[in-house]
Amino acid sequence: MTFTATILTLYPEMFPGPLRVSLAGRALEEQKWSCETIQIRDFAAGKHRNVDDTPAGGGAGMVLRADVLGAAVDHAIQRQPKTPILAMTPRGKPITQERIREIASGPGVIILCGRFEGFDERVFDAHPEIEQVSLADIVLSGGEPAALAILDACIRLLPRVMGAASSGTEESFEDGLLEYPQYTRPQEWEGRTIPEVLRSGDHAKIAAWRKARSEDDTRSRRPDLWERHGGDPGQSASDVQRKK
Amino acid sequence: MTFTATILTLYPEMFPGPLRVSLAGRALEEQKWSCETIQIRDFAAGKHRNVDDTPAGGGAGMVLRADVLGAAVDHAIQRQPKTPILAMTPRGKPITQERIREIASGPGVIILCGRFEGFDERVFDAHPEIEQVSLADIVLSGGEPAALAILDACIRLLPRVMGAASSGTEESFEDGLLEYPQYTRPQEWEGRTIPEVLRSGDHAKIAAWRKARSEDDTRSRRPDLWERHGGDPGQSASDVQRKK
Repeated sequence: MTFTATILTLYPEMFPGPLRVSLAGRALEEQKWSCETIQIRDFAAGKHRNVDDTPAGGGAGMVLRADVLGAAVDHAIQRQPKTPILAMTPRGKPITQERIREIASGPGVIILCGRFEGFDERVFDAHPEIEQVSLADIVLSGGEPAALAILDACIRLLPRVMGAASSGTEESFEDGLLEYPQYTRPQEWEGRTIPEVLRSGDHAKIAAWRKARSEDDTRSRRPDLWERHGGDPGQSASDVQRKK
Repeated sequence: MTFTATILTLYPEMFPGPLRVSLAGRALEEQKWSCETIQIRDFAAGKHRNVDDTPAGGGAGMVLRADVLGAAVDHAIQRQPKTPILAMTPRGKPITQERIREIASGPGVIILCGRFEGFDERVFDAHPEIEQVSLADIVLSGGEPAALAILDACIRLLPRVMGAASSGTEESFEDGLLEYPQYTRPQEWEGRTIPEVLRSGDHAKIAAWRKARSEDDTRSRRPDLWERHGGDPGQSASDVQRKK
């Protein structure tokens, strides 16, 4: 079954864009996913096909019209029913790796990309099935770069895209922690060597070292994740390790 | 002055990609920013130009070699000294809009994009000036889609890119809150009307309504932001508003 991504956008020429290359590009050629776009402007009425208007109550910028968005979303749902619909907006809930896994295990995804000052809120009142999703705590010029990142994250998890060797189960966020640091040859580089334990061949020791580094780095770099993981902010994971 | 973005990548053909279009594309044509790429593979030695090797200590996937990355980073720094260097990795600190603003006000940015299982950690030991940065709590096939999002966020803030009307100061994250919901014409759509207050013409009332909605939505959608903002998790901002 092909995973179908449908993007509602004013800039369909941005897709598949960078996803035509590398891992996602090969998967696209092999028809493991397909990329459809819907031009939002096609659903605008009148000679000028206006998609936006000034914000009610005043303010800078332009707001995408509910009637135009509503018609475009209806069309997408008709073409691809029973598919999750995301709207990329900094007002949304942060996307998680868990949600990416759920989406990647389904039939596809519909992604609504805004530009300007955002969407007329009524489109979300009328379509409570649309998930308002934020990629990061930064403001983009539109939803398109965010949609590309979300699609990339989904595509790598599709069956037979990464290959059996990298199942994607031992990586950052999968167990609520950051991944441990990695090393590879050469053994010595500019006076810096690979940590001794990684060359020991002792699998239990290596696993313990990696777990401790994962915990240490999560605690220092991502206190938010560490807290959710149930970690004690005052104690270093490798302190615990060393005491054992 | 032109803001110079230099991307270290194994897939230079991904850039400027979607940033050739719309706001970033116009700014590129007007030479408000420039996009350079450095092919990491050009810094690999030997006939096969290997950029990666298996992880020390075992595990799936491949790790980018410190010697190859180090040489590529040295080259980028030589070409563009005194420029912030980001490495896109899920192990990094989350990027913030505040950091985006700082970068956008400077001469440019160098972004190191990984693929596979990540970077040999020693490149960060040797180059403490590299900021390890994460875009979102999701895992991408490589740093490239994340770099595109970071660049897009920077470019829109460059002088004279958005125009004076949209200064980017009244939007999500700028005051630690989500932006308020937006509405535009038509006045009525599918039985749903624009909130009365936004049509009142009373600027103080409109500002108060928007602030309350901003606070409400931040509290319900982003308890993490709300807490950092110093908000009380139990009390609704519009409750406070209503009591006044």
